[in-house]
Amino acid sequence: MTDTPSLLAAAHRRQGTALPVWFMRQAGRSLPEYRAVREGIAMLDSCRRPDLVTEITLQPVRRHDVDAAIFFSDIMVPLAAAGVDLEIKSGVGPVITEPIRTARQIHELPELDPAAIPDIAEAIRAIRAELPAHKALIGFAGAPFTLASYLVEGGPSRDYARTKALMAGEPMLWDELCARLARISATFLRVQVDAGAQAVQLFDSWAGSLAPYDYATRVQPHSTAVLSRVADVPRIHFGVGTGELLRLMGAAGADVVGVDWRVPLDHATKRIGPDRAVQGNLDPALLSAPWEVVAERARDVIRAGAAAPGHIFNLGHGVPATADPDVLTRLVALVHEEGPALRAEALGH
Amino acid sequence: MTDTPSLLAAAHRRQGTALPVWFMRQAGRSLPEYRAVREGIAMLDSCRRPDLVTEITLQPVRRHDVDAAIFFSDIMVPLAAAGVDLEIKSGVGPVITEPIRTARQIHELPELDPAAIPDIAEAIRAIRAELPAHKALIGFAGAPFTLASYLVEGGPSRDYARTKALMAGEPMLWDELCARLARISATFLRVQVDAGAQAVQLFDSWAGSLAPYDYATRVQPHSTAVLSRVADVPRIHFGVGTGELLRLMGAAGADVVGVDWRVPLDHATKRIGPDRAVQGNLDPALLSAPWEVVAERARDVIRAGAAAPGHIFNLGHGVPATADPDVLTRLVALVHEEGPALRAEALGH
Repeated sequence: MTDTPSLLAAAHRRQGTALPVWFMRQAGRSLPEYRAVREGIAMLDSCRRPDLVTEITLQPVRRHDVDAAIFFSDIMVPLAAAGVDLEIKSGVGPVITEPIRTARQIHELPELDPAAIPDIAEAIRAIRAELPAHKALIGFAGAPFTLASYLVEGGPSRDYARTKALMAGEPMLWDELCARLARISATFLRVQVDAGAQAVQLFDSWAGSLAPYDYATRVQPHSTAVLSRVADVPRIHFGVGTGELLRLMGAAGADVVGVDWRVPLDHATKRIGPDRAVQGNLDPALLSAPWEVVAERARDVIRAGAAAPGHIFNLGHGVPATADPDVLTRLVALVHEEGPALRAEALGH
Repeated sequence: MTDTPSLLAAAHRRQGTALPVWFMRQAGRSLPEYRAVREGIAMLDSCRRPDLVTEITLQPVRRHDVDAAIFFSDIMVPLAAAGVDLEIKSGVGPVITEPIRTARQIHELPELDPAAIPDIAEAIRAIRAELPAHKALIGFAGAPFTLASYLVEGGPSRDYARTKALMAGEPMLWDELCARLARISATFLRVQVDAGAQAVQLFDSWAGSLAPYDYATRVQPHSTAVLSRVADVPRIHFGVGTGELLRLMGAAGADVVGVDWRVPLDHATKRIGPDRAVQGNLDPALLSAPWEVVAERARDVIRAGAAAPGHIFNLGHGVPATADPDVLTRLVALVHEEGPALRAEALGH
């Protein structure tokens, strides 16, 4: 085992048959040790305590032996740190005290001063100090569209009607909002990379709600602005239900395109092109199926992923809170044990 | 204006430049006259009163001049009529009193006796008697997968984890459940067609949550079983987020594939093939944008739809409850007034 994290090799499309694996939302509610340390501590508070962030980020690495740690945070953390009044309500999600309803609110959206988040850099350094050299630390931020959707809707939404109406009806104002959010996201990622994050993942969780035209004209440019600020590390770009947007999300400046479970990875690669790796994409709902089913479907993912110029094994979305941690541990072992041979076979070696 | 409904011509791929339009969920909460007649009447009760069903089905035809009426019902109606204990909770959706947790519940799932729903046939006949001859009446049913997801989860779901675990872990039992649901759906549609429905739409609303492999192996065969029972009328087949499933949903036995707003109709046609018409696909969230935006995006949909061998204009999903009915009326007028010229231009006539 070399000291170059296998995740970075895959992101650089130089992985050979090695197959790195981690899970979105691996640091979270599916783990009893997470629930124990979070008890009585509000989500946003927990994201600002370097001791807790370090512990929570490392928990799944210790338990599952995944090849990467993802920085424990919330996409709302940089907004809250910038001064936006919001809370994370358990069972609901982010709730914005004063949803954006006026141009003035957009023009007055605060900037994020890196000096306001010394704890983030401190946590990154603490994690790197403990993380084995062959494992990578991935930085984390939400993309402008997804952040904007929360600010405009006031919380989670089914149809993003207000967000889309603003985007379509007031495109200049929309662009002003997203340009500001892009600066906040970029600052948040930049602080993480400067402190030692070796890759980043930009979550545009809800971009899949958009038609390609809207994404290309009013969303992609802002995500590009974020990703261009951290071009010195591999950049993973992910959203749910983004089958029609995969090429655009790659072209936004990603080295790795995250794919949900709806698009087989060989199809995804045809859409994305030969210059980017893929990440994914086992359906997280299948984690509750019998192990032999999980194993067989994971093997299918590995075989399909061999068609891509680089593959990082992951779920197609976050770990469900109800997932059995032992299944995840077993899945990591399968990817490590069977991955190289399955890839070699699929690659025709 | 001939007496052949333009919707049927389009479904048969013989429409020329005429462009029929209707809206999913056009009979519903966006209309004040609907809210007035529904006041104090539970959803499932309203679906079993021929006078109300007739009135509600015809309301949008009168108001908007759409080219088709969609039979007012709920996908749970045939299950309730068969004897499954459930209710439709306002703001929640269907809630199943005893969600399916055992094989025995599946084996004991009742059949739907056509004699149990004389009101459905009566309403269809009453609607046809009032509907102008150049407008079509579309019958309505939910597809086996979507029905199964409600029965297994007990209500609406975010991730369909129990449903997918059953499908993957107990495929024989899953198939038994869906075969039973397919018979119920088919009976419900057959009663409507026998009474005078001139087309049907099978709603597999949540099929888009599935990977193509799961859809092809465990869902499509059951939808095929339903659609084959009403092969004497044009069959529309729709689900949300089904970009990766369009070809399979067409091949299940559809004459028209409904497409949500995520896939431009010219792309959709490439996936579906030259033997089927398409229906869609303006993003319903855009209805709250300024009219000029709605109009321009509707024109884009019309132009893209001309690439298909048949096009029925619709939204990409149901009318939101908050939609302004006047915008819908104006949209119908635009499709009727500008549609033929836009199609002629796009077709190179």
